[in-house]
Amino acid sequence: MTGPVIKELRITPIAITDPPLLNSVGIHAPYALRTIIELVSEDNITGISEIPGNVDIDELLRQSEEIVVGSDPFQLNKLKSTLFQRYGHQEHDVRGDNPWDDRKLIHVYSALEVACLDLQGKVCNRPVVDLLGGRCRDYVPFGAYLFYKTEGAGGVFGHHIDANATGWAAARQARAENPQEIVDQARSMFEEFGFNSIKLKGGVFPPEQEVAAMHALSEAFGPQVPLRFDPNGVWSVETSIKYGKSLKGILEYLEDPTRGQQGMATVRQALNMPLATNMCTTSFEDIPGSIALGSEDIILSDHHFWGGLRASVYLGKICETFGKGLSMHSNSHLGISLIAMVHMAAAIPNLTYDLDTHYPWQSEEVIKGGRVKFEEGKVAVPTEPGLGISLDRAMLQQLHENYVKCGIKRRDDTSEMKKLYPDWEFMPIRW
Amino acid sequence: MTGPVIKELRITPIAITDPPLLNSVGIHAPYALRTIIELVSEDNITGISEIPGNVDIDELLRQSEEIVVGSDPFQLNKLKSTLFQRYGHQEHDVRGDNPWDDRKLIHVYSALEVACLDLQGKVCNRPVVDLLGGRCRDYVPFGAYLFYKTEGAGGVFGHHIDANATGWAAARQARAENPQEIVDQARSMFEEFGFNSIKLKGGVFPPEQEVAAMHALSEAFGPQVPLRFDPNGVWSVETSIKYGKSLKGILEYLEDPTRGQQGMATVRQALNMPLATNMCTTSFEDIPGSIALGSEDIILSDHHFWGGLRASVYLGKICETFGKGLSMHSNSHLGISLIAMVHMAAAIPNLTYDLDTHYPWQSEEVIKGGRVKFEEGKVAVPTEPGLGISLDRAMLQQLHENYVKCGIKRRDDTSEMKKLYPDWEFMPIRW
Repeated sequence: MTGPVIKELRITPIAITDPPLLNSVGIHAPYALRTIIELVSEDNITGISEIPGNVDIDELLRQSEEIVVGSDPFQLNKLKSTLFQRYGHQEHDVRGDNPWDDRKLIHVYSALEVACLDLQGKVCNRPVVDLLGGRCRDYVPFGAYLFYKTEGAGGVFGHHIDANATGWAAARQARAENPQEIVDQARSMFEEFGFNSIKLKGGVFPPEQEVAAMHALSEAFGPQVPLRFDPNGVWSVETSIKYGKSLKGILEYLEDPTRGQQGMATVRQALNMPLATNMCTTSFEDIPGSIALGSEDIILSDHHFWGGLRASVYLGKICETFGKGLSMHSNSHLGISLIAMVHMAAAIPNLTYDLDTHYPWQSEEVIKGGRVKFEEGKVAVPTEPGLGISLDRAMLQQLHENYVKCGIKRRDDTSEMKKLYPDWEFMPIRW
Repeated sequence: MTGPVIKELRITPIAITDPPLLNSVGIHAPYALRTIIELVSEDNITGISEIPGNVDIDELLRQSEEIVVGSDPFQLNKLKSTLFQRYGHQEHDVRGDNPWDDRKLIHVYSALEVACLDLQGKVCNRPVVDLLGGRCRDYVPFGAYLFYKTEGAGGVFGHHIDANATGWAAARQARAENPQEIVDQARSMFEEFGFNSIKLKGGVFPPEQEVAAMHALSEAFGPQVPLRFDPNGVWSVETSIKYGKSLKGILEYLEDPTRGQQGMATVRQALNMPLATNMCTTSFEDIPGSIALGSEDIILSDHHFWGGLRASVYLGKICETFGKGLSMHSNSHLGISLIAMVHMAAAIPNLTYDLDTHYPWQSEEVIKGGRVKFEEGKVAVPTEPGLGISLDRAMLQQLHENYVKCGIKRRDDTSEMKKLYPDWEFMPIRW
């Protein structure tokens, strides 16, 4: 018996409106880049996926065409080993200092894996969650992801980049710098999406100011709303311990206060408070160090750089085996990534924390039917074959034109920040 | 979209002719018990599996019918959580001192999982290996599994129990006690099955005698044939170190010389030789201790008690992550278990050791087409949907009649040994 054969790999870089959100490395550019992947079988069944956009990753994706075309989407082990044998020795394929992951090859495999699973599901007439062990839940809960931001809904100078953009993010012009503005942002997001938990992306302002925001959130929302706080690794071990202590009792977890597994382990021992990471333990190669040192309690996976949905399920089993929690990290993204996260999260028994998502901060959509709906902060697990979604080709074309016009080739929050503050510099440990 | 629904669970205990093989807890009875599971969907598609036979496991399987019937074979996570919620608090569900695993619930889930995967594969028109990530290899290699044995091909008194049994095992009357008889057994098995590696099940005779057998094998087969040796945990730490040293340089790995992770870790440190286990690390709950202590280099999985094929793939990822090797343990079994092992082993990239199998020691078969063929010690990975095999109902009936007639309810090698040697007693550490 022979399986379906992939006859075409389509790679479409797109640019989506992104608000001026602040983080430890700078500020979001007016557009975030994503890349949309389509795998078309000889039977004209199409599998799709979405990954962070980056001209280097796109180039490697294009190179992978010679491996992908002619292959069977069920042969994921073979696809991975062939890709890594062919391209695994590329220089500089390292995670980097950014809050996001800059490795190319694992992003390429992740992109192809999700599209293959979508294709598999369509061939088998089963939703992707059923190919991952079946659903543990019918709805996947997300949390409100708060950001410090400048005024405006797009671009660092406060102007609205895309006049056609609609929805909560496009309307949300308000600045968020002081604690009250953060509370206001949370209330607005809760009202729109029905979230039941909160994360604040910190590492932007001095620790006192950000800790004050967390206390303001705690007072405003009370103990029934879990709070998380993420300084993105820019605190020293001493600063993490000092300000971590002042957050005791109000946090569900503290995320990446400092850099590196050793630093995280020291902070964790000193604080006796759950620590989460998407910076110090970001690949299977990091797991032995994580276990030996005890660097975190909760791993925030991301299927875009852990190697796809199956790898995330494996990570879930590792977390369960070692008594760690599991949740999900996100970057600015559209509905394909969101729905892939939903299938995966539905298939992992021990995924018990609300997931991160930047989705509320985006305004456009590239899938038919438009923006994905949140009900009480949750997204329903699709029951249709594959991912259960399909591309809106007109929107894909429009967002690709945005990509061509905007001229951005890779994410660079620091350069964007320098437009506002020419003397601003990234510092791996700022406080 | 709704999936297939299971309408029937069939449980058929069978008894298969087993030669008088010796081990640390006694001797194999004239029949080994297996249980054959069939799950029938409303569309009359049948998924099958095979597990070690045991009247207590069979009883729990029967109880599970109320959960299984009406469920969707794709919802494995739900099946597992429901089973463990319902029956997870049963007393005495512990591994036990035997070389095999006596836990009931994990066997029940494993049996159902494999049958569900067979059903899934038939529904999707894909071989099971493709539902596990796809094939890493087209042939799965097994090793020659040597046993000390009394004379005869069935039963402790040397008589041939089943007059209809044919094949290598039925013909192999020869006693195997001294080193030359072990070498003869290996030569005979190599000739018949084409194996390229050897394991001797020890823990039967004093260490000097068994070590001499390994040296005789090394001399007879040379360095190109990997040798493994398994005293089944009945050596003390001191004995393991003493005789382990005398085996240095001739073993690919030493399996379970002593009991418990701490003892194994001590031996491993003293010997600096690869140790394997299917006794001290036999569940995901054992993994943290294994990593912390460094109790073994290679885990010998067994999908019948690790929780099925998907769980074994997860274990493979854990082994890869922590730099451990992975191979497979076996008990007396027929072709359904063998072929399930083959699908799983084909889907695990880092499964790089020849697998164990008792299969050559059996004479009967319960699948259509009869006994599975080994080519140069390897079994071809099926390409047909599901497991790619189906039940021979006449043989199933005949082997079930064997079960009814033989009167054996659970494996008890010690009682069988007492028929030969009334004063013989099992000792957890004998030497």
